[in-house]
Amino acid sequence: MAMDAAAEVDHLAAERAAARFDVEEMKVAWAGSRHAVDVADRMARLVASDPVFRKDNRTMLSRKDLFKDTLRKAAHAWRRIVELRLTEEEANLLRLYVDQPGYVDLHWGMFVPAIKGQGTEEQQQKWLPLAYKFQIIGCYAQTELGHGSNVQGLETTATFDPKTDEFVIHSPTLTSSKWWPGGLGKASTHAVVYARLITEGKDYGIHGFIVQLRSLVDHSPLPGVTLGDIGGKFGSGAYNSMDNGVLQFDHVRIPRDQMLMRLSQVTREGKYVHSDVPKQLLYGTMVFVRQSIVADASKALSRAVCIAVRYSAIRKQFGSQDGGPETQVLNYKTQQSRLFPLLASAYAFRFVGDWLNWLYTDVTQKLEAKDFSTLQEAHACTAGLKAVTTSVTAVARILMKTVSQLASGKQPVGTMAYMGKVQYLMQCKCAVNTAEDWLNPVAIQEAFEARALRMVVNCAQNVSQASSQEEGFYERSPDLLEAAVAHIQLIIVTKFIEKVQQDIPGDGVKEQLQNLCNVYALYILHKHLGDFLATGCITPKQGALANEQVGKLYAQVRPNAVALVDAFNHTDHYLGSVLGRYDGNVYPALYEEAWKDPLNETVVPEGYHEYLRPLLKQQLKLSSRL
Amino acid sequence: MAMDAAAEVDHLAAERAAARFDVEEMKVAWAGSRHAVDVADRMARLVASDPVFRKDNRTMLSRKDLFKDTLRKAAHAWRRIVELRLTEEEANLLRLYVDQPGYVDLHWGMFVPAIKGQGTEEQQQKWLPLAYKFQIIGCYAQTELGHGSNVQGLETTATFDPKTDEFVIHSPTLTSSKWWPGGLGKASTHAVVYARLITEGKDYGIHGFIVQLRSLVDHSPLPGVTLGDIGGKFGSGAYNSMDNGVLQFDHVRIPRDQMLMRLSQVTREGKYVHSDVPKQLLYGTMVFVRQSIVADASKALSRAVCIAVRYSAIRKQFGSQDGGPETQVLNYKTQQSRLFPLLASAYAFRFVGDWLNWLYTDVTQKLEAKDFSTLQEAHACTAGLKAVTTSVTAVARILMKTVSQLASGKQPVGTMAYMGKVQYLMQCKCAVNTAEDWLNPVAIQEAFEARALRMVVNCAQNVSQASSQEEGFYERSPDLLEAAVAHIQLIIVTKFIEKVQQDIPGDGVKEQLQNLCNVYALYILHKHLGDFLATGCITPKQGALANEQVGKLYAQVRPNAVALVDAFNHTDHYLGSVLGRYDGNVYPALYEEAWKDPLNETVVPEGYHEYLRPLLKQQLKLSSRL
Repeated sequence: MAMDAAAEVDHLAAERAAARFDVEEMKVAWAGSRHAVDVADRMARLVASDPVFRKDNRTMLSRKDLFKDTLRKAAHAWRRIVELRLTEEEANLLRLYVDQPGYVDLHWGMFVPAIKGQGTEEQQQKWLPLAYKFQIIGCYAQTELGHGSNVQGLETTATFDPKTDEFVIHSPTLTSSKWWPGGLGKASTHAVVYARLITEGKDYGIHGFIVQLRSLVDHSPLPGVTLGDIGGKFGSGAYNSMDNGVLQFDHVRIPRDQMLMRLSQVTREGKYVHSDVPKQLLYGTMVFVRQSIVADASKALSRAVCIAVRYSAIRKQFGSQDGGPETQVLNYKTQQSRLFPLLASAYAFRFVGDWLNWLYTDVTQKLEAKDFSTLQEAHACTAGLKAVTTSVTAVARILMKTVSQLASGKQPVGTMAYMGKVQYLMQCKCAVNTAEDWLNPVAIQEAFEARALRMVVNCAQNVSQASSQEEGFYERSPDLLEAAVAHIQLIIVTKFIEKVQQDIPGDGVKEQLQNLCNVYALYILHKHLGDFLATGCITPKQGALANEQVGKLYAQVRPNAVALVDAFNHTDHYLGSVLGRYDGNVYPALYEEAWKDPLNETVVPEGYHEYLRPLLKQQLKLSSRL
Repeated sequence: MAMDAAAEVDHLAAERAAARFDVEEMKVAWAGSRHAVDVADRMARLVASDPVFRKDNRTMLSRKDLFKDTLRKAAHAWRRIVELRLTEEEANLLRLYVDQPGYVDLHWGMFVPAIKGQGTEEQQQKWLPLAYKFQIIGCYAQTELGHGSNVQGLETTATFDPKTDEFVIHSPTLTSSKWWPGGLGKASTHAVVYARLITEGKDYGIHGFIVQLRSLVDHSPLPGVTLGDIGGKFGSGAYNSMDNGVLQFDHVRIPRDQMLMRLSQVTREGKYVHSDVPKQLLYGTMVFVRQSIVADASKALSRAVCIAVRYSAIRKQFGSQDGGPETQVLNYKTQQSRLFPLLASAYAFRFVGDWLNWLYTDVTQKLEAKDFSTLQEAHACTAGLKAVTTSVTAVARILMKTVSQLASGKQPVGTMAYMGKVQYLMQCKCAVNTAEDWLNPVAIQEAFEARALRMVVNCAQNVSQASSQEEGFYERSPDLLEAAVAHIQLIIVTKFIEKVQQDIPGDGVKEQLQNLCNVYALYILHKHLGDFLATGCITPKQGALANEQVGKLYAQVRPNAVALVDAFNHTDHYLGSVLGRYDGNVYPALYEEAWKDPLNETVVPEGYHEYLRPLLKQQLKLSSRL
């Protein structure tokens, strides 16, 4: 049960009773283990029951009050973590359920990992204990006003001064102002700052430096440091609790040993030297951050789908005869064709996220042993799954490279192993004859493999006709993007199929996941039908059969839909949505919430006497100048 | 020139100089006439130059302050309209450029039209002068907490009491509360309220009634009337200036003559009688509202595209060699493949909106002459173009009906005339052999006609196999939706082709519009390639040629992109975007804006002493209970 309080009536009880599977076991399948369910449940309830963590008033707070509330929650969360002696796992979950972006996210998620990954042993011993105890608060100052994804284009400089054994950190232009770092605007005392290292007159490119920004006595910015918040953000203010910041340096000096020196050092004399630690270690951090983003995406989607499915089961519209009750919106096929693919996607992303997590662990272990064989693939897969355009190029490039090496007999491995079947996949014919044939995972897998491979091969052929490879990549980049997306969708489908082929305990749990796996695959097939037809992987008739089958699958998902979102085990506090309440008692709650708006503090609104009454009474004063 | 102030440097000057067409003439093509350009320009500047209408601080105002600001702007706009004796056209444009949703939108856009459309001559003579002079403020109270699109499901009752010659307006349930009407929450004195008319114990369904809600003396709600605002809305608060409201009636009495009686009346004795005015007249209003929504969509898209194109020309990322300047984001093919179809869509929607406007005028004239022949099509087309799911069913139904009548030899007309070529379109083969062949409007038009018709015919066959037509419609509704979308896209493409076949003055203007027309059509073809291939309208090879051609078209659009969005003639005030500034001077403006956030009023944030300092000093007080 994921309810915050005992509800008098469960308006979704009939939906829950109709489900044909064991919801408790599905929670285990979703969370990964019984332990994971239990600890998450405990932390979610701890947060939901604590009045300091209330967030239903969040949209009504001014920016300043919201920020103050964020500081309060962060301090209170830390207090509870200390008091209850929470484990790291528990503490992370507690922060997750507090569900209000703030400086602590960057402190734990970026500042500490940067020092761990890029700092020497000595640097770690000096700085990490301070960070662990919150004696300093850190953020990650990379992005600049004029420079985002292209880290090599950053303009901030760190010039070594051998006279004083210091680096001089400086912002030479307006566009070099650090811009966006979370926690920077108001909260952080320190930052890992990325800047161009200049020593002996030479620019050695971007390196990280630990820089103190604010006084530990009174929190005022140190001399030469200009700090501020960059202002409100889009999206109903969900991210306005964060003090994303702007930062400028005017020749700020830091000791030489605050350069993060694990990979390279500047000596007392100003010589730039590489350590024997391989540079690739840095990519491990990027793989970690990206796999977290995929996990976060799955979580965010599961919350949205949970709200949408529950409300669609409560909301009724049309379909009544002579004033009888209207039809639940969730019963409409058009609504199902929108929601159920998203429901299936939430599960699909969850399972591919698990796999990415494994991949990260595997890469890390191999990196420690200086085995870089899987790093490039992990880099490409996480970038692709993160689905940021610029990074998707990485996927496209590795695909082009793999295809070009097929002729030489080099067997691709990992997620690209299917390309080894190039002869077969280039000419295979889909064997589907009936709609039910599409329930066969072999048919689905082969169609997705053939589609991805044929698109990749097409791209490779087109690129090879250009005057240069770079020119070919430039001209064909939209096609490369589509091929990369096909490859990534194949991975998601494959990992989902692998998941449902495992033993999964609980009545009906495996069957539900099989349905969702088929919904996901056949929905993607329908959405990208042009790809499958253009490459001749399936026939129009087979495409129509897939569409017919997905309609049948929707009918099977329908009675289980509410229970399938219950299995996410989200508390009402975490969902933060009247429409998505566990008990479905939407309308009275919606009505009650409305009256809390500040605009309802007075019956006659402020401004009536100045701006409405004169209008209504035809007493508007005209301008004197007329 | 659409600049608010003289800029010192035009950072987009090079882009503008590279354009190969007459921007001033393109403004005329976009706006519809030289007069339209001039009057819009005059009103936009009037608003932009008036400090009362500033809106750059809007996101920083609290809900109450924002609402008060909206009241102020509305009063000031009315003052200017009166002072300057603006025409109706000028007044409408002035309100458009004030660009802050508020009660006046509903007063002029819904309250007045409802009385005009549904009121008798006497009712119009009584109420319209009051509304025209703002002696009353009106809104449109239809939607209820539990009932949206399905108007026939509304629960509010209006029961005739023959003893007092009054209607008793009542909200029998919580879900019958009026919910969402703009201007209702705080500003309106009156509303057109939709309620179930009950007389002589019989329910005659939904009718409109003019109901006074607030005292004209002190603006307090009248007895039996509960009024409030429904609270903040999603979307960065763009709509929080509007007082969307909640309204409940507790047996509120109104005189019988406040029922809107143009179509039907209740007599002094309580008899329900129809007038001889045909019911279809009501649909005219819906057609009008929907065509406004299409026009608004085009306007909104043009603003977004203008901002995105300008910023993409300013923003640089990657592509530099050895620290040289980076590449304009607008030069990336992937960016072009995202932005240029939207740029083309803005123009496409603009021209189909013109056509809808003509259609509305035509329908209205025919309705006056009691000719209902084109009403159904206008209803379906506007609903489809409005693209609201529930209403798209209307499109699908008229398509099914038209197809089913083909066998009887009935020739379809209007936008469905192409279905008369059923024999040809069901078996025609696309003649495209080269990428350039796709520049032929005949080839495009035929492919879109064949695709739409074949999808409609497929649906009709599938629906006919169901046990009943209703069952077939229900089961096949996602397919019907896709067929309806194909039909609507055909209309948009057709109207764009018709537009560019007209004489269009100005150097290069016609050529640019031809490019955009082709971009729009070939982009849709690529996006929905599955439809075109599955129905055999084109071959995979022809699909690849279309994709190749669209890439070439992007290269032709690229040097004209900034000038093409300049042609929308949006002022900086109207755009309200630092990123979309006319002069492209983005970074200093962004930097300057940031400091205005209330969070930057103090260097050390509020909450530091309570929540940050104790944390940093390890002095967090633990709970006493531990």
